[in-house]
Amino acid sequence: MKHRAARAIAECELIATMSEEPGRITRRFLTPPMHNVQAHLRARMETLGMTVHVDAVGNLRGLWTPAGASGRRLVLGSHIDTIPDAGAFDGVLGVTLALEWIGLAQELALPLAIEVIAFSEEEGVRFGVPFLGSRAIAGHFDPALLTLKDPEGVTVESAIRDFGLDPARIGEAALHPDAIAFVEIHIEQGPVLEAESLSVAAVNAIVGQSRLSLQFSGHANHAGTTPMRLRHDALAAAAEWIAEVEDIAGRTASMVGTVGKISVEPNAGNVVPGVATVSLDLRHAHDPTRLAAVEELFAKATAIAKRRAIALQRTDHLDQPAVPMDERLTAFLGDAIEAAGLPPKSMPSGAGHDAMVIAARAPTTMLFLRSPGGISHHPAETVREEDVGASLRVGREFLLRLANDIG
Amino acid sequence: MKHRAARAIAECELIATMSEEPGRITRRFLTPPMHNVQAHLRARMETLGMTVHVDAVGNLRGLWTPAGASGRRLVLGSHIDTIPDAGAFDGVLGVTLALEWIGLAQELALPLAIEVIAFSEEEGVRFGVPFLGSRAIAGHFDPALLTLKDPEGVTVESAIRDFGLDPARIGEAALHPDAIAFVEIHIEQGPVLEAESLSVAAVNAIVGQSRLSLQFSGHANHAGTTPMRLRHDALAAAAEWIAEVEDIAGRTASMVGTVGKISVEPNAGNVVPGVATVSLDLRHAHDPTRLAAVEELFAKATAIAKRRAIALQRTDHLDQPAVPMDERLTAFLGDAIEAAGLPPKSMPSGAGHDAMVIAARAPTTMLFLRSPGGISHHPAETVREEDVGASLRVGREFLLRLANDIG
Repeated sequence: MKHRAARAIAECELIATMSEEPGRITRRFLTPPMHNVQAHLRARMETLGMTVHVDAVGNLRGLWTPAGASGRRLVLGSHIDTIPDAGAFDGVLGVTLALEWIGLAQELALPLAIEVIAFSEEEGVRFGVPFLGSRAIAGHFDPALLTLKDPEGVTVESAIRDFGLDPARIGEAALHPDAIAFVEIHIEQGPVLEAESLSVAAVNAIVGQSRLSLQFSGHANHAGTTPMRLRHDALAAAAEWIAEVEDIAGRTASMVGTVGKISVEPNAGNVVPGVATVSLDLRHAHDPTRLAAVEELFAKATAIAKRRAIALQRTDHLDQPAVPMDERLTAFLGDAIEAAGLPPKSMPSGAGHDAMVIAARAPTTMLFLRSPGGISHHPAETVREEDVGASLRVGREFLLRLANDIG
Repeated sequence: MKHRAARAIAECELIATMSEEPGRITRRFLTPPMHNVQAHLRARMETLGMTVHVDAVGNLRGLWTPAGASGRRLVLGSHIDTIPDAGAFDGVLGVTLALEWIGLAQELALPLAIEVIAFSEEEGVRFGVPFLGSRAIAGHFDPALLTLKDPEGVTVESAIRDFGLDPARIGEAALHPDAIAFVEIHIEQGPVLEAESLSVAAVNAIVGQSRLSLQFSGHANHAGTTPMRLRHDALAAAAEWIAEVEDIAGRTASMVGTVGKISVEPNAGNVVPGVATVSLDLRHAHDPTRLAAVEELFAKATAIAKRRAIALQRTDHLDQPAVPMDERLTAFLGDAIEAAGLPPKSMPSGAGHDAMVIAARAPTTMLFLRSPGGISHHPAETVREEDVGASLRVGREFLLRLANDIG
């Protein structure tokens, strides 16, 4: 396993050099370095005896079909695009590890067909909309997406053609009906596993997410001449509410609530703030819990605004339901973690992933690896070789169980 | 008095038309419309029998010397510059009312010399530094101020020459040694008198002011993947502190404390804020009370930062002591208010005024007039004619008392 772990990491570091920008890792959907990444992965897949093609939305797909395999197949995959100035492991590690799982299945001579997908787009950077690759695989790629433009004015449709693909064939990218399970391996991108000294975890859900903004509108007044009791200070109201967000999220298990953005008018040191606008990002794996918290927080804001004689305006931006992972598949993964001699751990994912999209089409689960320092979306993003090795031991146990179950 | 009040208001409205910008009231230090204002006021002063000149820093000065007057003189004045897009009364009303006081002194045949000063600069807009007019009158105009540049690169020295004045003669602008009292009449620019249904108040002090900024530096983390207990949220820390500012200022009599400015990094809805920088503007008439509150608030910030494992950096910008008004002169004004049949009221000024600068040179006090809606530094700024009339009845009583005292 040590050799496989070292290779999976080294592959990520090699792929990291295939970038739009020298010295930084930036690889957006269907940009020229994607050709290099696909050529490299295609060669790796072919060496493993897989049959390879690129679908019409740019996903690289390799299929391993051993002798004696049933029609049913396991699908593994993650994305190979990145944010600008990214780390080397977000997405890519899920592909290089999937190829090591192929090697493990071959070692074990498992009669299990396995497809590996390197998703072409997950981060939403180039066209402002994420999951372009996995939407096509889930079979619900909205044709309107083809008209989206990147900052240079190039449409998704042109980008696909320029890459040598045919947008008319996107429908054919949909997951094969024989796919009975999808597993995405991904770094955690958070600090939980590190805080608990764990290498890996099964993901039981991708959290639901509410995004909204609140605007408190009071009165901008002179900071010297307006007594405290005669103020309608919009920032003081917003600050009181920020404390409520922290309080409610802090006392609700597994909830995260964030006010990440604030703007104040006129934003001058000697003027009582007249308007304060704050964002809310609230996430939880259980939708009713999330929605109740949003309403509780809105009620708190309403009460704060009323007491201060300040106007309140709410704008909802996103209400994305949680996506539970397949229970049976996640239990398999949990068993595999224990069989690999690791402490059992399952957790929700606080970030979105391709698995969230594929889950609508096939039973899906995810395996998380510890993110040292919780650092991701940053050049300092890394993984520990021992954790990668642990994930491979888990993969071996999982493949054994799944092959047995299918067989 | 009704005629005088109406005229004082109409003069302000006329002078408001003398602006750098058509349709808006903007009149910065020594800009062309200042010539028009000075020509208008000079004619008014000369009609009143005053001798008029413009000193080397652009203050228009008229002296009324009646027969039988002693050498000692009362000085009245306020500023005729404005902020951009100003109201018509901030500053200017103090000059038009001073001219009505001259008329009252003449009606009463008081043997009292009175100088009226229309200060050339108070707002600090053109050169970023306020009180250029009153500094010269107080006799401490720092020659380094001559090198300040406006946004067009024009220095104070050039602006003075361009206006037809001689910067070498600024020393001669200092207040005459015979000046035994300075009174500035000004709108309150706040809501206190309106809240108490009062027309006027004597000002007993100009508050001291602390300005500083605090930077809370935590860690920017993923809003979805970072559990609440593992966060070091700089905005949550700042919000907690903003509540402390409101609390301490709210429970300390006559204190005002304002967080008017905030900036957050990276200021994205889905990222836990890594850095939050907030301003503090804290004012009180009693310096030890103000300084103790600043230190209490800094201790609160230190405790908040420590508990959250967040770094804290403090930058002090201003520590301006309070300026008490002359007790005897303010008592005279208080007596005059009562003699005019008005409820007694004295209060601190939360804003700076020329009186603050002149107080270093001569016994000084101020008379405040109600600001409807507390509105100032805005085109909607106004005054009520009945309040202007009340202030003139107070002026009459004050002049009688002062003439009697000097005589």
